[in-house]
Amino acid sequence: MKKIGIVGGSGYTGAELMRLLVHHPEAEVQVMTSRSEVGRRVDELYPNLRGHTDLEFSDPGEADLAACDLVFFATPNGIAMREAPGLLEQGVRVIDLAADFRLKDLDVWSRWYGMEHVSPAWVEQAAYGLPELYRDEIRGAQLVANPGCHVIATTLAILPLMGMDWVEHDRIIADTKSGASGAGRAAAVHTLMAEAGESMRAYAASGHRHQPEIRQTLTAVSGREIGLTFVPHLVPMVRGIESTVYLPLSGEPGDVQARYERYYAEEPFVDVMPPNSHPETRSVRGNNFCRLAVHQPLDGPVLVVSSVIDNLVKGAAGQAVQNMNLMLGCRETDGLELVALSP
Amino acid sequence: MKKIGIVGGSGYTGAELMRLLVHHPEAEVQVMTSRSEVGRRVDELYPNLRGHTDLEFSDPGEADLAACDLVFFATPNGIAMREAPGLLEQGVRVIDLAADFRLKDLDVWSRWYGMEHVSPAWVEQAAYGLPELYRDEIRGAQLVANPGCHVIATTLAILPLMGMDWVEHDRIIADTKSGASGAGRAAAVHTLMAEAGESMRAYAASGHRHQPEIRQTLTAVSGREIGLTFVPHLVPMVRGIESTVYLPLSGEPGDVQARYERYYAEEPFVDVMPPNSHPETRSVRGNNFCRLAVHQPLDGPVLVVSSVIDNLVKGAAGQAVQNMNLMLGCRETDGLELVALSP
Amino acid sequence: MKKIGIVGGSGYTGAELMRLLVHHPEAEVQVMTSRSEVGRRVDELYPNLRGHTDLEFSDPGEADLAACDLVFFATPNGIAMREAPGLLEQGVRVIDLAADFRLKDLDVWSRWYGMEHVSPAWVEQAAYGLPELYRDEIRGAQLVANPGCHVIATTLAILPLMGMDWVEHDRIIADTKSGASGAGRAAAVHTLMAEAGESMRAYAASGHRHQPEIRQTLTAVSGREIGLTFVPHLVPMVRGIESTVYLPLSGEPGDVQARYERYYAEEPFVDVMPPNSHPETRSVRGNNFCRLAVHQPLDGPVLVVSSVIDNLVKGAAGQAVQNMNLMLGCRETDGLELVALSP
Amino acid sequence: MKKIGIVGGSGYTGAELMRLLVHHPEAEVQVMTSRSEVGRRVDELYPNLRGHTDLEFSDPGEADLAACDLVFFATPNGIAMREAPGLLEQGVRVIDLAADFRLKDLDVWSRWYGMEHVSPAWVEQAAYGLPELYRDEIRGAQLVANPGCHVIATTLAILPLMGMDWVEHDRIIADTKSGASGAGRAAAVHTLMAEAGESMRAYAASGHRHQPEIRQTLTAVSGREIGLTFVPHLVPMVRGIESTVYLPLSGEPGDVQARYERYYAEEPFVDVMPPNSHPETRSVRGNNFCRLAVHQPLDGPVLVVSSVIDNLVKGAAGQAVQNMNLMLGCRETDGLELVALSP
Repeated sequence: MKKIGIVGGSGYTGAELMRLLVHHPEAEVQVMTSRSEVGRRVDELYPNLRGHTDLEFSDPGEADLAACDLVFFATPNGIAMREAPGLLEQGVRVIDLAADFRLKDLDVWSRWYGMEHVSPAWVEQAAYGLPELYRDEIRGAQLVANPGCHVIATTLAILPLMGMDWVEHDRIIADTKSGASGAGRAAAVHTLMAEAGESMRAYAASGHRHQPEIRQTLTAVSGREIGLTFVPHLVPMVRGIESTVYLPLSGEPGDVQARYERYYAEEPFVDVMPPNSHPETRSVRGNNFCRLAVHQPLDGPVLVVSSVIDNLVKGAAGQAVQNMNLMLGCRETDGLELVALSP
Repeated sequence: MKKIGIVGGSGYTGAELMRLLVHHPEAEVQVMTSRSEVGRRVDELYPNLRGHTDLEFSDPGEADLAACDLVFFATPNGIAMREAPGLLEQGVRVIDLAADFRLKDLDVWSRWYGMEHVSPAWVEQAAYGLPELYRDEIRGAQLVANPGCHVIATTLAILPLMGMDWVEHDRIIADTKSGASGAGRAAAVHTLMAEAGESMRAYAASGHRHQPEIRQTLTAVSGREIGLTFVPHLVPMVRGIESTVYLPLSGEPGDVQARYERYYAEEPFVDVMPPNSHPETRSVRGNNFCRLAVHQPLDGPVLVVSSVIDNLVKGAAGQAVQNMNLMLGCRETDGLELVALSP
Repeated sequence: MKKIGIVGGSGYTGAELMRLLVHHPEAEVQVMTSRSEVGRRVDELYPNLRGHTDLEFSDPGEADLAACDLVFFATPNGIAMREAPGLLEQGVRVIDLAADFRLKDLDVWSRWYGMEHVSPAWVEQAAYGLPELYRDEIRGAQLVANPGCHVIATTLAILPLMGMDWVEHDRIIADTKSGASGAGRAAAVHTLMAEAGESMRAYAASGHRHQPEIRQTLTAVSGREIGLTFVPHLVPMVRGIESTVYLPLSGEPGDVQARYERYYAEEPFVDVMPPNSHPETRSVRGNNFCRLAVHQPLDGPVLVVSSVIDNLVKGAAGQAVQNMNLMLGCRETDGLELVALSP
Repeated sequence: MKKIGIVGGSGYTGAELMRLLVHHPEAEVQVMTSRSEVGRRVDELYPNLRGHTDLEFSDPGEADLAACDLVFFATPNGIAMREAPGLLEQGVRVIDLAADFRLKDLDVWSRWYGMEHVSPAWVEQAAYGLPELYRDEIRGAQLVANPGCHVIATTLAILPLMGMDWVEHDRIIADTKSGASGAGRAAAVHTLMAEAGESMRAYAASGHRHQPEIRQTLTAVSGREIGLTFVPHLVPMVRGIESTVYLPLSGEPGDVQARYERYYAEEPFVDVMPPNSHPETRSVRGNNFCRLAVHQPLDGPVLVVSSVIDNLVKGAAGQAVQNMNLMLGCRETDGLELVALSP
């Protein structure tokens, strides 16, 4: 069994990593750290794990993370860039679920995350954790940057069209909607049930950190200048992201449905739905799928792609386990063969 | 007191008309018809009305609607075009909350609503019930077509920009999100709590009836060819619509915030929020406001307007009462001076 | 116009007081204090109030509360007992929406609220703000203790049976369910949407502060020893409390429906529903009603009463306005003639 | 592999059986019938099953159910009593998820279900599918009656106290709360999102079919006269049941926590939580656990037990798979080793 560590395990992505790994055939969580919950049983904080683990949260300063084969950082932005390098230098593999190693351009990174980067060298070496695009790099990587949740839903919806001459790459629009668990488990006013329940709204309409991240990938894939308008919304549910992407056309797109089906034919976790479908977020609740559907409204000059993921699974912990499987040489689907919970 | 009738009063818009009119200073509901609920007290079906009305549902065939000053049709599409003309010819004023008189082009109407129109002459005479644009026509009208709910939120978000040379009128995108009450009170599977709760999805992405309706208004106002992509979504809440509109720019827009504030300065029910705001649907829950905010993400070439309404109030019954006030010579805000319910 | 002040106005009950008072015919809020929001417009924090008030939050230390006719304390427990006496001595009337003046037995109070009481004399003079029971005392009172939210729903459900020989007063059970707004607007983990959404649970099953408060009233009314088991639950909604009360019988109860109807016949805000009804919380959403229904399951030896209120209205701010109306000689229903919002 | 059939597979319990069985090591669903969906792929109706099954719904009249080792009836009440006997006589094992074989007293059954029973002999032979009580009978049974959902949560909460002299068996009260999926997937008004969302209410307070079912078991176990008041409530969530049970004491109960832990020590799917816990429904979302906690409020004369299950799993399909495992000689936990989904 591979030995796994989770740094910052008391948040939702930490707990979700544990949920996915308890039945993993080749990996076992041996350390789960949390500054605030040292000594507390994990299943006391997350009673859904009762009967599945006896682990206690340990102090990040005292935990023997170097003995692990792979360590997940489920920490706030700015932690992994300080703490991961020490482990990496000892040969431990690392997956960061935060944003520290996602953007290659450190000026852009600093502008959006409001701090200087302290590990530029590791940014360069990090693989970007999108297996659908960088499977081979991830396999050989020692450090993987797990993408943002809005980013995954949106990027997968767009990828098959990048580089096509008939797509206006400078006019892409992505309107995403996310459940409240995306904001994490920190006490806050704006995500209280009484604030976020029975109501919805846009946020960060003037600019959101996930915009440059999506743009970086689309630019790399298409080799073109990307214009992307991205507006996230908070909707009154716990889990789930839906991204509706609008791609203006400058020419005849041909059979787009077939293009998507072909593009993702071998992907274990991307499901192109039949024509005229509208994927629901609940159809991926708790599992690692991204389901998407393509439309050309009124046969007009705009393609519409609707894509859904579970923000805590394909949008975070599940994607991270998929990356882990690649890095450790396990089957890519190990621990992830779950049926979504619906209704 | 003006005498008011409601045809098809057992649905949500009928009940909401009653909620708004019980405290109206100059109008009183005297007849409320319902084929399925004849003889039942209105407050038995809607206990929130207990203590506010003694009315019983009456048979549409027997009700003395001709004695009313104004009759609301809160009926399914295709009813008012058959039943309203008789009343109109006796001098009764009529507001149709369904789609029968909304589209001037009857070919378009037939294509989207799947039936032949039986009252083309009244379509021509009907005023379109958007007071922000057609206040004077509504005042003098005998028949008013109350707009669709997605339509109102979206049209008000776009209006101040129509005809501006720096707006690409052929590339407008509207992504709307609606609560489940928009689907009405009819028994159905897809809007069951167990189907629509804790989940979200797009619908009608290939084309929706509200698209030609929005387009008709925008074309009329701008005098230009309008290209509009419109995708509605169902989100897990009861009331509320949020519409996020994306308008690509071909030139310098100037001070858009000021333009919106000026455009709506005299409007009693449109609230342009301060820069950098994100209106929440709950900020208009139960009242007749449309609140909207304007953004230019990353100072790029796309304007984003987020607008919210209560689909049953400004999106249906409240808008209808506003129109009624204009038609009957009441103060435009009578019966509508309610504070939204938040949280 | 009577001059009204609200201390601690930035929480939900403060905002709700403002919502109810903006249309009050004889009272006007002139001061709204908040330690954390000094200088901020009230309608910036609560956009549903935009267009209804220009007030800014003022510093509690600088606000001229003594110039008010009546001041509401919408503060945490332990504040009013320190700050209200100064105002009371200057002749200002005070309504405390917290628990400082609710319990006459100060030992019991200290045990449940974990502090010493600093104003025992005012506890003695305070009227208990349940108009259905103490209307005359409230009219003449200078200080009123507004009851707890679970308390109001539960007490009104039980009152008509107190003192009846055929009710076992020592075996009463109340199972209440509350929406998340009852926990207030303070940042917290357990009431996050991601924690409290799509889930429910009991809380404080071993004992809750509202138990002694209900018991105090029932004892006073019945003159008997009261045994009360009270367990509250948190359900995934924003507003509303439902209380299901179980009263074992030791004899023939006679026509209980008629007894309830008679008991509340003159009450403006208690609605005894017809036999075989099940009141929904939404039937009182946003208004000041308590609706209740009585059942005798399978004609067995237990009476069941289900009662619903909006926890922020009849359970807090609305009840406080009803008390204010009595204290200031207004009509009891002023500012409270609202129709509940349903659906 | 054992061959499994599901009759009435288009409803929620049918789909949930499929979700649980796709990864079962020793059983495989080979037939899934549905009168209304003949020929349609199961994963078209339930997209969460995409990638997990290729099955199509077949006509109940044509499906070869007799070739199955075991057939689940996920049908409305009154179907299995007509259609199961034919299969039983051919040696097929049957589990009925409806109520046809739950009550041994057929007069009581007819009164509550409004029809005559047509298979009295099979009622007599049916084992009652509560493994915690009747594991051995279930192992040897050819026909198992799967209990009702409220019944399971409530019965498991009470069982360890039955027969104790210090419990007043004639004064038991159970207040249960259920999500909307319990009402099934049939089109209906009262469980629309717009009706059941953001609101809650009691229902069937005058008497509900699950009362005699709970009573039958408690009587059998305790050998005493059982008085039970049972009131279910509908809360605005999709999955989950919470049952709060109140048991009056006539004497000293001793260490009740220890009694519960001992009673359920060997049970794979009952989790007695530590003292002072309040189980949340989400802690069992999607899995087969019943979690419960015991309280004695204010050390008074009433025990309170709060128990939670997922109504579609331990309350229906999961319990049925647990019974199937016993009947077919599989490991009792096969197919059911799932971690609950939380948040």
